Amino acid sequence: MSSSDSFDVTPRTKVRRSPARASYDRSLAHAILDEALVASVGFVQDGQPFVIPMMFAREQERLILHAASSGRFRGALGNGARICVTVTLLDGLVLARSAMNHSLNYRSIVVLGSVVEIDGDEKLAALARLLDHALPGRSKECRPPNAVELKATTVFALPLDEVSVKQRQGGPLDDAADLELPYWAGVVPLAEHASPPVADTSHPPRAPVPITVAAYRDRSAPPRPSP
Amino acid sequence: MSSSDSFDVTPRTKVRRSPARASYDRSLAHAILDEALVASVGFVQDGQPFVIPMMFAREQERLILHAASSGRFRGALGNGARICVTVTLLDGLVLARSAMNHSLNYRSIVVLGSVVEIDGDEKLAALARLLDHALPGRSKECRPPNAVELKATTVFALPLDEVSVKQRQGGPLDDAADLELPYWAGVVPLAEHASPPVADTSHPPRAPVPITVAAYRDRSAPPRPSP
Repeated sequence: MSSSDSFDVTPRTKVRRSPARASYDRSLAHAILDEALVASVGFVQDGQPFVIPMMFAREQERLILHAASSGRFRGALGNGARICVTVTLLDGLVLARSAMNHSLNYRSIVVLGSVVEIDGDEKLAALARLLDHALPGRSKECRPPNAVELKATTVFALPLDEVSVKQRQGGPLDDAADLELPYWAGVVPLAEHASPPVADTSHPPRAPVPITVAAYRDRSAPPRPSP
Repeated sequence: MSSSDSFDVTPRTKVRRSPARASYDRSLAHAILDEALVASVGFVQDGQPFVIPMMFAREQERLILHAASSGRFRGALGNGARICVTVTLLDGLVLARSAMNHSLNYRSIVVLGSVVEIDGDEKLAALARLLDHALPGRSKECRPPNAVELKATTVFALPLDEVSVKQRQGGPLDDAADLELPYWAGVVPLAEHASPPVADTSHPPRAPVPITVAAYRDRSAPPRPSP
């Protein structure tokens, strides 16, 4: 596993369409992964690709995924099969003067590879990391997994080896011949926002809202500290 | 193509994990598709699954996708290969008293199948639909595609035949034995928010902000009208 500033480009990770929007920068990749809550995980079964949304976490130079030990996903991943984990952050709707120059502003990352199952203390740490990715410190503010729960869950690690980043930022890029057309052009900025936390209504919690939860806010700005 | 209220369940679309969260309801599927701006499109090349974020639209009982005519994506899709289009809307972070009952609130849809290329008037209408999906009425407020642009772009339709919806809503579901534990439990609601539009700074537009753009707001509430 390389830990240089950039990921090596492989034939599979080389971005061919709009290569100017591509990046292999490790810190940019980390930032995108750390901001997102959901990954789209692609795997193949009988020639049919499936893409499933999943919680995930970054732990140093690998991604953590988990699945029910009895589930289809474990079977699809646990045999060394190739998978693809894609994370996309949507930043804006780009409105151009011409139809075909409309676009989205986004940051996305594609990670290719095969997972390995992890176990023992490493498994416990990875499960804690999944919570702390979603909400820093949360793993210390809840009951940790017990033996039955641990057995029912399989935890996987996917190394950050084959990685590419693609992003688009900024305003519309219209053809010169279109610039005087009588159409408005610009960007509608988009971001994920959090509303104030809502306590469990079925069973009012026995503890006040922790600082970590009360302070939960837009994940887009400012960036959270990286592990 | 069925147009009943529900999609037929096939072995490939049968949700096996947490089946209580599954649905095959057509109107729910439409609502999720109409609210989302980005789809995660999965395809296979040389045994490796790839998942790529793409703009898309729903047009009646099919999805519209487009790609550069010269690109890798067209090659991967244009041969009748099976693909998977997954759309995920994130609604909240669910914080439970136990680590393993943490979850996300979300609505997601998985569409399986093969695309067909569409051409002629149908192609023009589909490209307009892509814009109007992102911003209703936008296709009338910009320059339509010209012949060169049309040739450079391939448009695909994926029928809404093999479809499953999965969602989780509501508060944490802790084990009875955990309810008295001294941890806060509840939900942090999440939604995509739009900020006020920003006009093209490089070339100030020759027209004022249209009503459609000025009125652009949270895509999550209230739902936009369905086509």
